[in-house]
Amino acid sequence: MSSILKIGIAGLGTVGLGVLKILSSHSELITSRSGRSIELKAISARSKSKNRGVSLDDLAWESNIIDLAKRSDIDVFIELIGGDDDPAKEAVETALKSGKHVITANKALLAKHGQELAELAEKNNVSLKFEAAVAGGIPAIKTLTESLAGNKINKIMGVMNGTCNYILTRMENSNLAYETVFNEAQKLGYLEADPTLDVGGIDAGHKLAILTSIAFGTQIDFAAVDKQGIELISVQDIEQTREMGYRIKLLGVSQITDEGLEQRMQPCLVSATSPIGQLENAMNMIIFDGDNSGQVILRGAGAGEGPTSSAVMSDIIDIARGNKVPTFGQSATSLIKMNP
Amino acid sequence: MSSILKIGIAGLGTVGLGVLKILSSHSELITSRSGRSIELKAISARSKSKNRGVSLDDLAWESNIIDLAKRSDIDVFIELIGGDDDPAKEAVETALKSGKHVITANKALLAKHGQELAELAEKNNVSLKFEAAVAGGIPAIKTLTESLAGNKINKIMGVMNGTCNYILTRMENSNLAYETVFNEAQKLGYLEADPTLDVGGIDAGHKLAILTSIAFGTQIDFAAVDKQGIELISVQDIEQTREMGYRIKLLGVSQITDEGLEQRMQPCLVSATSPIGQLENAMNMIIFDGDNSGQVILRGAGAGEGPTSSAVMSDIIDIARGNKVPTFGQSATSLIKMNP
Repeated sequence: MSSILKIGIAGLGTVGLGVLKILSSHSELITSRSGRSIELKAISARSKSKNRGVSLDDLAWESNIIDLAKRSDIDVFIELIGGDDDPAKEAVETALKSGKHVITANKALLAKHGQELAELAEKNNVSLKFEAAVAGGIPAIKTLTESLAGNKINKIMGVMNGTCNYILTRMENSNLAYETVFNEAQKLGYLEADPTLDVGGIDAGHKLAILTSIAFGTQIDFAAVDKQGIELISVQDIEQTREMGYRIKLLGVSQITDEGLEQRMQPCLVSATSPIGQLENAMNMIIFDGDNSGQVILRGAGAGEGPTSSAVMSDIIDIARGNKVPTFGQSATSLIKMNP
Repeated sequence: MSSILKIGIAGLGTVGLGVLKILSSHSELITSRSGRSIELKAISARSKSKNRGVSLDDLAWESNIIDLAKRSDIDVFIELIGGDDDPAKEAVETALKSGKHVITANKALLAKHGQELAELAEKNNVSLKFEAAVAGGIPAIKTLTESLAGNKINKIMGVMNGTCNYILTRMENSNLAYETVFNEAQKLGYLEADPTLDVGGIDAGHKLAILTSIAFGTQIDFAAVDKQGIELISVQDIEQTREMGYRIKLLGVSQITDEGLEQRMQPCLVSATSPIGQLENAMNMIIFDGDNSGQVILRGAGAGEGPTSSAVMSDIIDIARGNKVPTFGQSATSLIKMNP
């Protein structure tokens, strides 16, 4: 356990670079907390020559991420390239089959293939970890799989897409039309390349599907999430709800009802004085209602370099410490199939 | 790892009974999440004959908790009797020396003897865990030692005593004098036998001292906490601050200043619209400000049977899964001694 933990990172966007910077700037702190050194050995990204403001000279470079996933000199493969299918999927599979732990921030991949990837991880006796995939710097996955492991979860609620919350609070606070704020957000780089992922509730739906699976011991079922975006909300809607003491939030809710497991991601009225009602700008909030814990509320930045790389670091350090928690908090093969 | 994890519980008050009930009612869930069965083998409490509404027939009974701590048929000793010295201290030491993991909810014991107990745990290669000692159902310890392990912590803030927060919000919302609400709280059983522990900021100070130690890698130093209680706050104070847009909270703050490590637990003015300002009744809130994560805010019930036993269960399941995190998130012997 005191040997060096060697990692490889695929993808040097905001999060990849963030992890690289933390590993370098916090090296001593991390070693003291992990009980061993963590060493970045190899990387892969689209462009080798791009100036990223950091030196990559000491690192092995792989132009093909599948080759990175196979390298014999890494213990942990970190997938930060995104996309709900290949090459991300093939790379994660290759790494798991090669006996490497995998860390990913890729909620789309997990929402689509999480079940089979978790089974593959189990079969190969390695960890598949994804704290950064849900609500950035908020410890949503760890809280649910570990802190609340002694609870039957009654309900999950939350604001899981910072961009939507930014748009809604900006419309409310500045009395601006949806289109105006949308264009503003796009210029600021807050929106995904395909903005429907954000404003259509799809990205938030991915996160809810992942949390739901863990909370209720079911297989991930993104198709079952009842999704509605924020595109049709007008300033008038916002004004009227404000007058009644409410605010409009893109709210995720999962719970077991008489009709079975219900997953909704849609605009909802919430009391203006509730913790969710008071959530401003790009912040995220997740509320877990456990039968023993009561409501545990987590709030923080749901995106951005620092918060998301902090979540990746948490997964790396867990692995360095030798800690193992099943991908969905319990064996993937034991999860209930709700819609066969 | 698939063998049964056997535990012993010392103390059958609110929390002890809560743990006993969860182990029995959630047995299947816990086994599936832990990957092994958890079995309560032996207990110790003041009175064997007291009617607690649950059957203790299948459990071994020890009238002396030191004997419980030594039993060869338990792997984990759970200390829930309280008190900052013997017999709690001797029992914990005995268990650690006998190679048993220890879980405790005893913040007073940790604030006074945490350092030596952590060193003893390390020496014996067992875990000393205490999620329930700080802020009940809020995963404060796990978030700090695990989720934020890739951060330099800039600051800790929080409301860590639900009774004080109850008294202050009740004074504000009902315009009642401190003495009136204090007497009310005492009748409701909200106060410790020695109420100074609550209203004098001592209990909250214990929690802050523990969190500070973890966050800043220092040895616990409760004596260095600058403490002031809520006893002198008048309805007039509360009214005046409200008019200015503030609320009075018993606020814990730890940070590194030019003068060194600062730990304060005292009544503070906070903006009425901030998350802490909006914290009502007996709720707790902990805010960690990490250099990468930004502010991570945790809110939940800081006391009570369900939330506190949920936290104990989290520690039990961590141990069942074989997960090990150093007591203070890093080796106890490596902690800085601030006041030699």
